[in-house]
Amino acid sequence: MKKVVAFGELLLRLDTRDHERFVQAEEFVARYTGAEANVAVSLAHFGVEAFAVSKVPSHEVGQACVNTLRRYGVNTDSVVRGGPRLGILYVETGASQRPSKVLYDRSHSSFCEVRTDEFDWDALLAGKDWFHFSGTAPAQGESVRRVLAEGLRAAKRLGLTVSLDCNYRSTLWGAEEATRVLTGLMDDVDVFIGSADDAELLFGIAGEPAESAALVRQRFGLRHVAYTLREGGSASFHRLAGLLCDAEGCCTSREYAIQIVDRIGAGDAFTAGLIYGLLCGWGPPRTIDFATAASCLKHSIPGDFNLVSVEEVERLLSGEEAGRVQR
Amino acid sequence: MKKVVAFGELLLRLDTRDHERFVQAEEFVARYTGAEANVAVSLAHFGVEAFAVSKVPSHEVGQACVNTLRRYGVNTDSVVRGGPRLGILYVETGASQRPSKVLYDRSHSSFCEVRTDEFDWDALLAGKDWFHFSGTAPAQGESVRRVLAEGLRAAKRLGLTVSLDCNYRSTLWGAEEATRVLTGLMDDVDVFIGSADDAELLFGIAGEPAESAALVRQRFGLRHVAYTLREGGSASFHRLAGLLCDAEGCCTSREYAIQIVDRIGAGDAFTAGLIYGLLCGWGPPRTIDFATAASCLKHSIPGDFNLVSVEEVERLLSGEEAGRVQR
Amino acid sequence: MKKVVAFGELLLRLDTRDHERFVQAEEFVARYTGAEANVAVSLAHFGVEAFAVSKVPSHEVGQACVNTLRRYGVNTDSVVRGGPRLGILYVETGASQRPSKVLYDRSHSSFCEVRTDEFDWDALLAGKDWFHFSGTAPAQGESVRRVLAEGLRAAKRLGLTVSLDCNYRSTLWGAEEATRVLTGLMDDVDVFIGSADDAELLFGIAGEPAESAALVRQRFGLRHVAYTLREGGSASFHRLAGLLCDAEGCCTSREYAIQIVDRIGAGDAFTAGLIYGLLCGWGPPRTIDFATAASCLKHSIPGDFNLVSVEEVERLLSGEEAGRVQR
Amino acid sequence: MKKVVAFGELLLRLDTRDHERFVQAEEFVARYTGAEANVAVSLAHFGVEAFAVSKVPSHEVGQACVNTLRRYGVNTDSVVRGGPRLGILYVETGASQRPSKVLYDRSHSSFCEVRTDEFDWDALLAGKDWFHFSGTAPAQGESVRRVLAEGLRAAKRLGLTVSLDCNYRSTLWGAEEATRVLTGLMDDVDVFIGSADDAELLFGIAGEPAESAALVRQRFGLRHVAYTLREGGSASFHRLAGLLCDAEGCCTSREYAIQIVDRIGAGDAFTAGLIYGLLCGWGPPRTIDFATAASCLKHSIPGDFNLVSVEEVERLLSGEEAGRVQR
Amino acid sequence: MKKVVAFGELLLRLDTRDHERFVQAEEFVARYTGAEANVAVSLAHFGVEAFAVSKVPSHEVGQACVNTLRRYGVNTDSVVRGGPRLGILYVETGASQRPSKVLYDRSHSSFCEVRTDEFDWDALLAGKDWFHFSGTAPAQGESVRRVLAEGLRAAKRLGLTVSLDCNYRSTLWGAEEATRVLTGLMDDVDVFIGSADDAELLFGIAGEPAESAALVRQRFGLRHVAYTLREGGSASFHRLAGLLCDAEGCCTSREYAIQIVDRIGAGDAFTAGLIYGLLCGWGPPRTIDFATAASCLKHSIPGDFNLVSVEEVERLLSGEEAGRVQR
Amino acid sequence: MKKVVAFGELLLRLDTRDHERFVQAEEFVARYTGAEANVAVSLAHFGVEAFAVSKVPSHEVGQACVNTLRRYGVNTDSVVRGGPRLGILYVETGASQRPSKVLYDRSHSSFCEVRTDEFDWDALLAGKDWFHFSGTAPAQGESVRRVLAEGLRAAKRLGLTVSLDCNYRSTLWGAEEATRVLTGLMDDVDVFIGSADDAELLFGIAGEPAESAALVRQRFGLRHVAYTLREGGSASFHRLAGLLCDAEGCCTSREYAIQIVDRIGAGDAFTAGLIYGLLCGWGPPRTIDFATAASCLKHSIPGDFNLVSVEEVERLLSGEEAGRVQR
Repeated sequence: MKKVVAFGELLLRLDTRDHERFVQAEEFVARYTGAEANVAVSLAHFGVEAFAVSKVPSHEVGQACVNTLRRYGVNTDSVVRGGPRLGILYVETGASQRPSKVLYDRSHSSFCEVRTDEFDWDALLAGKDWFHFSGTAPAQGESVRRVLAEGLRAAKRLGLTVSLDCNYRSTLWGAEEATRVLTGLMDDVDVFIGSADDAELLFGIAGEPAESAALVRQRFGLRHVAYTLREGGSASFHRLAGLLCDAEGCCTSREYAIQIVDRIGAGDAFTAGLIYGLLCGWGPPRTIDFATAASCLKHSIPGDFNLVSVEEVERLLSGEEAGRVQR
Repeated sequence: MKKVVAFGELLLRLDTRDHERFVQAEEFVARYTGAEANVAVSLAHFGVEAFAVSKVPSHEVGQACVNTLRRYGVNTDSVVRGGPRLGILYVETGASQRPSKVLYDRSHSSFCEVRTDEFDWDALLAGKDWFHFSGTAPAQGESVRRVLAEGLRAAKRLGLTVSLDCNYRSTLWGAEEATRVLTGLMDDVDVFIGSADDAELLFGIAGEPAESAALVRQRFGLRHVAYTLREGGSASFHRLAGLLCDAEGCCTSREYAIQIVDRIGAGDAFTAGLIYGLLCGWGPPRTIDFATAASCLKHSIPGDFNLVSVEEVERLLSGEEAGRVQR
Repeated sequence: MKKVVAFGELLLRLDTRDHERFVQAEEFVARYTGAEANVAVSLAHFGVEAFAVSKVPSHEVGQACVNTLRRYGVNTDSVVRGGPRLGILYVETGASQRPSKVLYDRSHSSFCEVRTDEFDWDALLAGKDWFHFSGTAPAQGESVRRVLAEGLRAAKRLGLTVSLDCNYRSTLWGAEEATRVLTGLMDDVDVFIGSADDAELLFGIAGEPAESAALVRQRFGLRHVAYTLREGGSASFHRLAGLLCDAEGCCTSREYAIQIVDRIGAGDAFTAGLIYGLLCGWGPPRTIDFATAASCLKHSIPGDFNLVSVEEVERLLSGEEAGRVQR
Repeated sequence: MKKVVAFGELLLRLDTRDHERFVQAEEFVARYTGAEANVAVSLAHFGVEAFAVSKVPSHEVGQACVNTLRRYGVNTDSVVRGGPRLGILYVETGASQRPSKVLYDRSHSSFCEVRTDEFDWDALLAGKDWFHFSGTAPAQGESVRRVLAEGLRAAKRLGLTVSLDCNYRSTLWGAEEATRVLTGLMDDVDVFIGSADDAELLFGIAGEPAESAALVRQRFGLRHVAYTLREGGSASFHRLAGLLCDAEGCCTSREYAIQIVDRIGAGDAFTAGLIYGLLCGWGPPRTIDFATAASCLKHSIPGDFNLVSVEEVERLLSGEEAGRVQR
Repeated sequence: MKKVVAFGELLLRLDTRDHERFVQAEEFVARYTGAEANVAVSLAHFGVEAFAVSKVPSHEVGQACVNTLRRYGVNTDSVVRGGPRLGILYVETGASQRPSKVLYDRSHSSFCEVRTDEFDWDALLAGKDWFHFSGTAPAQGESVRRVLAEGLRAAKRLGLTVSLDCNYRSTLWGAEEATRVLTGLMDDVDVFIGSADDAELLFGIAGEPAESAALVRQRFGLRHVAYTLREGGSASFHRLAGLLCDAEGCCTSREYAIQIVDRIGAGDAFTAGLIYGLLCGWGPPRTIDFATAASCLKHSIPGDFNLVSVEEVERLLSGEEAGRVQR
Repeated sequence: MKKVVAFGELLLRLDTRDHERFVQAEEFVARYTGAEANVAVSLAHFGVEAFAVSKVPSHEVGQACVNTLRRYGVNTDSVVRGGPRLGILYVETGASQRPSKVLYDRSHSSFCEVRTDEFDWDALLAGKDWFHFSGTAPAQGESVRRVLAEGLRAAKRLGLTVSLDCNYRSTLWGAEEATRVLTGLMDDVDVFIGSADDAELLFGIAGEPAESAALVRQRFGLRHVAYTLREGGSASFHRLAGLLCDAEGCCTSREYAIQIVDRIGAGDAFTAGLIYGLLCGWGPPRTIDFATAASCLKHSIPGDFNLVSVEEVERLLSGEEAGRVQR
């Protein structure tokens, strides 16, 4: 069984119900999430041994967060306890012409206060195959960046593949700062997941997706660059495809027309599918098809986690009709 | 800040959940509503000072109704307390080929028993800019009509603009009675909101929407006539546009293809958008585009209230993609 | 009023909410169902006197099942009490590319243990017009088959029309066993409801639907054979039509494009519509149009029961727009 | 099986959840109830054949009400359909020092508009053993009184026992009117259920319960008079006993100390227990013990219906410990 | 109508349901609260004009908080918008031997960042009668203390009565800091609400409640000192009384034995009752009886707000039985 | 960290809500449980490393069961997958005089079909300290008994302490069979948890609890015998104490008066406390006090799991008042 370590913030996600607006909510669905944790959960459902490395407060809400990851099969032995608070994500699911809305309440979280002495990276990464993080982690400040830098160094030292999901959020940090920090990390990255928009905004690389991805790959000497290609003027309906470039060129997945239940986490599901395909040693076409189909399925599941098996992704790839009830 | 007074019945809306039929319901979502109150709430969210004038029973369910309007920013100081009961609206939200269904239980309500001595219209309307009511108010009987007549006279005396949303409901009154009563009120009306169907049924004015609206405007010497243009064989999906005619002619808005969450109140959202545009002094094209976009967004929100800001309507008008999560 | 007897298993259906996966469920919606009971409930809503014949455990969950049928107007006087357990159906409603999933926990149920001395078929069927069962009943084993055989013999003796909904489920029995058992029952069947897939798998009859249905009719000397024609790669959206063949030939219904709320039970709704049309003595075109429209409406209702009236089905047939709210 | 007919209004009961006040409620639990219907449901659970005679509107909410009675085993074949609306009962369950609160919205209901030609009492009561009604029925006005008078006459003619639960509600009618109307009906009544307070207020009969009940019995020539004896300064905790007087004297039941889940309907549960005991021919001690134990159990069940079996009541009477889980 | 200004933090309160522990929660009930806001809401329900002065973030969750106060009749015109976040209170309601648990996530909130230029105290307090705050406000740091100090000075200048509810929370600040800060504010305070424990911990004043309260009054030259006297080893059941001391001496209220629904906010309900009595010019006995009865009723209501009227408090004082349903 | 292995059936527990009866339930709360799993979860919360050994079906509901144990910190690596179904427990929580009710649907479960080749006991128990099972495991038939016998033999061989919670359920097996089977296992048992009733029924040992426990200990040569002493005629209120006998004699814990939220699982919580105390090497007085306090706290938590920490149990033992909110 392959082993993947995911480093990033863990958060409480508070959702209004049934497309309610925030001002209507009399209750919130309580979920625990995190860009990297979502990847870990999805990988665990693919049969990969997934490890979350993070920090949560030592009170019961922090414990509830850890419990959620355990429930879905992620190893949480290396989640540090301490610090003041768990970051929060308020989510309002849009519909049709009304976009979904996310309010971040992530500042001053326990994760922001990680310390390098809390993570023995050599021990954490020994015997592991892959190290994953997303741009939202270093966006959380200097302390995180220091811990991350040590982690990346250890990962390289120990021969792990490193993936970075760009995940740029302008409400977390400015483009200039993101460019500077992410560029500094790119040396240690093997696989980059992003979009043409991010590439233009952060790296000044314009162009059609395939062109953009190829240029990003070249610029940073990356092994793989993957983009999701999303088209959708509506919060209820999207078209989704994926793109994967390596030294040999770029290939595009089948496109899916999707009725959306919950779109959040679909990018992380894509990343998990990608990591899985690459871990399996599949070529780009199969890998990008798998990653995109996995991401497609995520849109049908409430919450951030892509709770689907490899078999279910492959059934979609095989063209089996979703309209037929499975009994 | 502009000031708008809305006069009409306040009701308890009891919804089944999740597309359940009435006979399946073991609980009802409790909402408080009213055609004119919906307009007031929407205007309050646009930054207008909105006043509800109505009558509810003096018990706690009446108070809960008032509280709901207060919650969403409507001034309720002129809601009279007394009378026997709060009218009720049972709602079952359809889907696909099954239409939504509304059962009225509005007879003998406190609002039906308004008395002219309960409303000091000169005080209520002093300093206000606009007076709005819908056809469902005079449909509730003679007492309401007497109070309304006094209100309209005061509105004209004080120079307010008066709008009437036709809102014809055959289950509340017959076409003949509606024609007689509404025609009698038209002299005091400046802005009429309706549909080609209503124009034909009530005023005998046939024709394509633009033609019909122009004729209605002419017949009653109105400043503006606005129609919603709705096309939709399904309870889950509609096409919506708007039409606005003034002395210069008619203009039509952009059309929206809408996945429906809750269609009820969309007409009131349109009216609120229209009033807002006219209060802002916008020309017909911008006004009808704003009103239609506002109404479009309403379809994505559960309940009757269009809880969106001017900024959100304008974001839709600007063509921003709703498929992109706002974070 | 016509009288229809439906014989089959009654089950508890446990649904996750809001498209949640089984592993996410913290609660289940509790519904009571059964292929034949669904037909009975739908017929009761069409004004037919419907009788459920079955067996449930004598404890309170068994009683709750009986109560549900009573609630929706089915006569349950002939539901026998006893045996070990009520069969269970776990249901997860899919969306878009993720198919709905049903887990059966039906073995060793009270229904599996029916005994011939528990059913006095002559008394049960006296004065009745129609006897209906589905393939899931004999799939439950020898005891059921013995009871069913006696029921069929009595039905024939007493002149009832007999309908069989094929309803083949590979998780209940193998194709070989199903073929053997169902073929043995066909002599007593007048009306067969199925699909081209089932016809090929069980009877080795291939071909386009109309061809297949005609051949099945001929092979087994049936009065009517009806198929649903379903097209849909998505769990959220389907196209549905119906096909009915008799000695004169085959006719096809109008096709519906359906946004799905709950697809389970739509086949039973079709069967109920078919039985109703034939009981009314309608010709095939009207019958198949009615059955298909009934089935179409079922997709908009949560749960297995098609809680619609004849008038509602006919309103759909008349082309009335579902987008218009009924008030 | 004994047969009991219960005549009275059917209502929709809307409950706030979890001790919420009306102004907090965002949803209402929807239950269907009625003083006499509650008695009928309880009797049905004791194995008596119970018939509800009433009138509900012919729309789906009226049907939902009928369905609820059917679900719990009451025969509803004689519930007339028509009239404007279903009466409503808003309920807020108190706790500790805060009393529960009920708001009536019962005026102008379909039941208020019953007509004598809608009830063929001779047919309705033929072969029945008992006729029950409560004071809230004639409180609903002249039309109800006319229908009731005919029913009582037929009951006497056909030899049924007649019971009246006083159930005086000052919000429905004044004491003077209640006294006049109820006194006029007493001639046809055999069994009267009330309280010392009501006896004093309506009949001017003061005294300790036993004394009061005996005097009421004597004054109106009744066969039995029963009182519930309730003591409780708290909405969460009560002491309850029962008293039954016949020509031989009065006897009192065991007293129960009760933690309250839902106190509403406990009086109807008492009445049902009483009717059951008398139908069984039990003597007063056993009857009043049974009735009081039945009422005691009702306090533990949410909603108005006493969904307990004879066996469960007798288990309480036998002194079995409620603290022991039954498995 | 008297006017009361309440200054303090507004928070989101997230409750688990049905006595669930934090680690079990899959959803949180969302309420908005604040020690001083609770007092304001209760006063508004007593007919007092209550004004909340605070600061919340300018996003929708901040707006939802403001809406909640508006809903319950509090004037929110002076709630400033801005700053990073709304403080949060996670609440787990205990039962029996398990105490309720509150987790604070209040640091770095918008309220902590109030600035003196955001509050024009002379305008805010002009024409008002009373200024209230609790110890949790200055516990939130220097910025709050500066704003508060200006408010207190203005209040004294304008002749308002000032009340301080000690509300010491060791998780917000240490005893030493609390002592220093609160002592510094005492000069401007007229009415102090606290407990013997707080008096000992913060002011080194030991003794029985009456003795302690009298000494606190004397030490700080206060007009009134009030304590709640609570006795209760259980999270489900308490005994509660109140104590009020002025220059004439001390008096104690009636004691209540309470079954608890939600204990949080009961202290604020007591304070509101106290302020109301003193505003009405009642003497200490009537005032403390009213305050304690108000607090008693709060225990029966879910959430922090004491949604009861003066009439309801007086009904409890009059000895009316809570066991009797009010209809 | 000590290591405990718990062997027994895992089940789905379906609860009605809010004291509803089974026939009222429209939804069930879905929990996963098992007498031994409950012990394991409680021990995990005490910091013990707890391992569940069992068998569940290989479908998603089986996985959900495993996930629940993982969530609460139990090691589930040795839960075998396979077999037909997950056993079910329907639960209706009583109140006051109405006892809670449990319906078992456990026959033919996957656990009943465990095979000896599925459990490598030597590997499973190596390095572990304690082996626990309850009487409900061997009650499930011969296959289980065979597996259990091998487990016990291995446990003894490897020097683990073995505990048996008698947990006699007459609906699972007859007293005679239970006596025979349990007696046969007693040789390998060190610690027995039961009650005087069970001792009399199964072993013919009568007498007061202390006497009975001492005799049981002697008869079977046990190290410890523990009883819970429960007194309670009500489903809402109990008195609970504990008794522990060893070679030195018997000691009794403090008694608790408990308001009940959920009584099910309280026996398992007692067992977990007992095992914890003995693992810690505490003497009988401290052990029985801890076990009883742990069990007491369980009554306040919905569901079977005693989600409390050692610190929380000790806070209760220390006499800290539960009425005080912890903030």
